[in-house]
Amino acid sequence: MLDTRSTSAALSTESKKGLTTKSTILQAALNIASKSGLDGITIGHLADLVGMSKSGVFAHFGSREELQIEVIRKYYQYFADSVFAPALTKPKGLPRLRQMIDSWLKIGVGENTSSCFFIAGAAEFDDRPGIVRDELVHSVEDWRSALLRAINESIAEGHLKKTVVPQEMLFHLYSIVLGAHHDSRFLQNPKSLALANKLIKNIFLNHQAITK
Amino acid sequence: MLDTRSTSAALSTESKKGLTTKSTILQAALNIASKSGLDGITIGHLADLVGMSKSGVFAHFGSREELQIEVIRKYYQYFADSVFAPALTKPKGLPRLRQMIDSWLKIGVGENTSSCFFIAGAAEFDDRPGIVRDELVHSVEDWRSALLRAINESIAEGHLKKTVVPQEMLFHLYSIVLGAHHDSRFLQNPKSLALANKLIKNIFLNHQAITK
Repeated sequence: MLDTRSTSAALSTESKKGLTTKSTILQAALNIASKSGLDGITIGHLADLVGMSKSGVFAHFGSREELQIEVIRKYYQYFADSVFAPALTKPKGLPRLRQMIDSWLKIGVGENTSSCFFIAGAAEFDDRPGIVRDELVHSVEDWRSALLRAINESIAEGHLKKTVVPQEMLFHLYSIVLGAHHDSRFLQNPKSLALANKLIKNIFLNHQAITK
Repeated sequence: MLDTRSTSAALSTESKKGLTTKSTILQAALNIASKSGLDGITIGHLADLVGMSKSGVFAHFGSREELQIEVIRKYYQYFADSVFAPALTKPKGLPRLRQMIDSWLKIGVGENTSSCFFIAGAAEFDDRPGIVRDELVHSVEDWRSALLRAINESIAEGHLKKTVVPQEMLFHLYSIVLGAHHDSRFLQNPKSLALANKLIKNIFLNHQAITK
């Protein structure tokens, strides 16, 4: 699902300028959405922020929904760089799975972080059908598939017991991250990250295969 | 925090009519917010729904934020009736704690339910300071205190081990409910309720005191 449309070796100067502007608008939209959710993005506010007319902003994105979708894609790219990529440098199995959860908690929980879009967006759009929700579900399912793959690899590598039910472990781990996100961002409880890490450690310990 | 201001034995006919109208507006606002979040409430839409002018709606609530706060209080009352009250009919300790979690899952997860405001509102307002957020935090903390009390009583009654750390168990149980809410509403996964119930059962089993 990574958006590769913004890279091309043979762009005209005009196209390059267009892409730079589009990229500036998208970054501003991402900043707004990090604070106020995807619905916090209004074309008027965005136009003010980047010093353009409303119609200028519309020229880059056909509609507000298309802009919201591009913001989700931009976040996905950021998520891929910050969470997927570092995990791939770790050995297959439990070390990789641990790294995925660690990086995820690092970008979305605690001080000097922004809400994780996959979590905040899920709550914002859960009861609202449409193309924005579909894009969000698509991104979240991508991320969940990667986690599930890492759980399956951990079993295959002999790091986790063969009795582990991957979907159950996925649900359990995902729930703990949701809890940490909730308690840290909404309740501003500074202990939530430590609590989450302790529970995650226990989940892995309880399901670790016994090595000879 | 229960709102008792709407009951009085000695109301004039005019006051009674005013309260009925206010109650109608609030119910309509609650219905909107159940679908589109607290920010989905607009005075214009609300005025259309109840067949009043915008200024008529404003006459009952000083501002949109005050209206949102009253919606949270109305939801709290509903939550108290649907979740707190049935739990109080159960014996102190684990039976009561179990009932609290069961009823909570029942109103917020699965088909024919609406998002739980305590969960949806937390995500909507987590990064937005103000009086609406404060009211939400207050309600959620009330609910968490009740859960924590029930965990402590379960230990005191000898239903749960003395080694249980109540705050950890609260975090764990709350996370599972967040997970079920997320998977059921956003991913529309029909298995999430069963997964959540299995994990909750295991959490209690793992921490149950051994009875002679």
